[in-house]
Amino acid sequence: MASLVRSWKPLWAKLFSQWPGHLSQTANTSCLQRCASSLTSHQIIYKKFGDPRQVLEKTEVQVQTSVQKDEVLIKMLMAPVNPSDINMIEGTYFIRPPLPAVVGNEGVGEIIGKGEAVSDLNIGDWVIPADSGWGTWRSYAVAPRSTVFKVANDIPVDSAATLLVNPPTAYRMLKDYVDLNPGDIVIQNGANSAVGQCVIQLAKHWNFTTINMVRDRPDIDQLIHYLTDLGADHVVTEKFCRSPEMKDFMKSLPSQPKLGLNCVGGSSSTEMLRYLGQGAKMITYGGMSRKPIVVPTGALLFKEIKLEGYWNTEWNKRNRDSQVRDDMYRDLCQMIRDKHFKNPVSDNIPLDQYDKAVAESLESFKGTKKILVMDRNLL
Amino acid sequence: MASLVRSWKPLWAKLFSQWPGHLSQTANTSCLQRCASSLTSHQIIYKKFGDPRQVLEKTEVQVQTSVQKDEVLIKMLMAPVNPSDINMIEGTYFIRPPLPAVVGNEGVGEIIGKGEAVSDLNIGDWVIPADSGWGTWRSYAVAPRSTVFKVANDIPVDSAATLLVNPPTAYRMLKDYVDLNPGDIVIQNGANSAVGQCVIQLAKHWNFTTINMVRDRPDIDQLIHYLTDLGADHVVTEKFCRSPEMKDFMKSLPSQPKLGLNCVGGSSSTEMLRYLGQGAKMITYGGMSRKPIVVPTGALLFKEIKLEGYWNTEWNKRNRDSQVRDDMYRDLCQMIRDKHFKNPVSDNIPLDQYDKAVAESLESFKGTKKILVMDRNLL
Repeated sequence: MASLVRSWKPLWAKLFSQWPGHLSQTANTSCLQRCASSLTSHQIIYKKFGDPRQVLEKTEVQVQTSVQKDEVLIKMLMAPVNPSDINMIEGTYFIRPPLPAVVGNEGVGEIIGKGEAVSDLNIGDWVIPADSGWGTWRSYAVAPRSTVFKVANDIPVDSAATLLVNPPTAYRMLKDYVDLNPGDIVIQNGANSAVGQCVIQLAKHWNFTTINMVRDRPDIDQLIHYLTDLGADHVVTEKFCRSPEMKDFMKSLPSQPKLGLNCVGGSSSTEMLRYLGQGAKMITYGGMSRKPIVVPTGALLFKEIKLEGYWNTEWNKRNRDSQVRDDMYRDLCQMIRDKHFKNPVSDNIPLDQYDKAVAESLESFKGTKKILVMDRNLL
Repeated sequence: MASLVRSWKPLWAKLFSQWPGHLSQTANTSCLQRCASSLTSHQIIYKKFGDPRQVLEKTEVQVQTSVQKDEVLIKMLMAPVNPSDINMIEGTYFIRPPLPAVVGNEGVGEIIGKGEAVSDLNIGDWVIPADSGWGTWRSYAVAPRSTVFKVANDIPVDSAATLLVNPPTAYRMLKDYVDLNPGDIVIQNGANSAVGQCVIQLAKHWNFTTINMVRDRPDIDQLIHYLTDLGADHVVTEKFCRSPEMKDFMKSLPSQPKLGLNCVGGSSSTEMLRYLGQGAKMITYGGMSRKPIVVPTGALLFKEIKLEGYWNTEWNKRNRDSQVRDDMYRDLCQMIRDKHFKNPVSDNIPLDQYDKAVAESLESFKGTKKILVMDRNLL
């Protein structure tokens, strides 16, 4: 394992040297000397990169209940199946963890034990990973305090389980790139994605107007209805975006978009560039079409468009103990309590049926989001 | 003319309502009532957009020597033939002036008369247009004081004549986008362009290291020698940039480029994106290949590359009376006096032979720059 860690990109060395998957194996082997008692944790692991339908396996490890002084014992509650999980298993993600690895970048767990030096977490508190790559698809984990982040435990479990990636991505993209005022216009593609739905709700809450691009599909009316209910001001198909009517529609608006959010790339991002206002920013946070962004010189020169990217993993890393992160989570949790911010529709599936959840996710990320549930009482 | 001005983009309305081409015609018609004497100005104009070899014509107008109180009388000295002049005549440039128009965005003239309200310019001072579209291809001009900008008159005339566009473009791109420290690396393509040569000299002066991409050509050794003499640290061909040796070369550097300057687009900008360091900015100021910039999603997300554009016309417009502009010109003129900043090699051609200058420029902008000379004593 040590050699694997050494061969790892330096950026991630610190993160993975604290990797709970690694720690719980250590805990397991030394358990006889150190533990008064132990819990059986089921965890979904992979020993090599490849097709998630083939390389995943379920294992059992014994987790000590008596933890080191700076550690916490966590009972995992829920963890979603995200595209980044799939890509990480395939080995196609920017991060390739040392193997074997426990699957799962996101999820929520409950503190059921803690070391004597952990003063800022109590039994019953909920925590989420502080970074990607933590390994959330397991029933129990022992982890250093520093690798988890406390969240409110009076919000729905599925909201907490999906609080690490998508809501902060939407939140930061709306906050950190352009000075938006009420009435200002944001245009986004992939508007029905998990992040897209967060953008719609946050923009509604902050009184920004959204133009939401989605792919054409048979059930388009249903989708428009769903997104409009969520708070979308305008929903347009990509086909409509290529029509003269779109130009007329854009001209009818009181101002042009100051911010574009792109998770698609290819022709979708080309359309978006066309409709951004003078000096606007386009923030890219994904590339679902697997096609690059094609930028005409004139868009940069004469229209003064700026392009940047947002990657939540990196933001998290740089802001792990920051006030700005605390404030964001406080905001988001309050919005969840006030029912101004809800999760995309999801299917809850027991951890044991991880293979079904993965297969269905691979079939189509257009479908309902899958959330693995570790505590059957939550089903 | 009024209706043409009204149909014009609002951005340029202010500029062109003060357009000396327009004013000198007025002066001409009212000359009998107002002038004690007049000068014959030869000016190169176009009445319709099209092929510069066909639509240009030389005309004569009488310019009054007694000017309005806020006007200056200018004897033009030199004006270059720039790609933007050609594109403006063709009607393919972002700006399309009201017609008929006097050609020429850049040039230098000497003050030979002034109105009583002009206190900050003296006879003998040199001025350059404050904005693009001024119409410099003429022997005399009457212009509002506000449309010209004073420059030092103790520098070479050709340096002054080409001080409006290329040196400020290089200067601002090196100053305004990335916080560069001595030793930091800048990579640019089209490094032998006029702006590219300015970048090399300014970077040398400020102790930034430059990697200069140029197209492969038969006389490559000669070009490498020329650019190295100018201060280039490294000159690489685009073919070399696609080779494994380029990767090895980049790895051998103490750091990776923080800034990329792109005037080419297409595959050249793709190569540049590959070699930029984490979080670097690529500034686009031209698109000589006439191909767009293709940006892989990962470059924005994981490498955190930012893309922006620089357009000198717009910068000028926003900073016309600013301290930052004064400081820049003082810097540039001092560098010229100290022989740290010299002009690209140029051919001086009499204004009368504008058709030859234009034809040769159209043949190849790779060749020597053409500068039109209005005063035969300067030839």
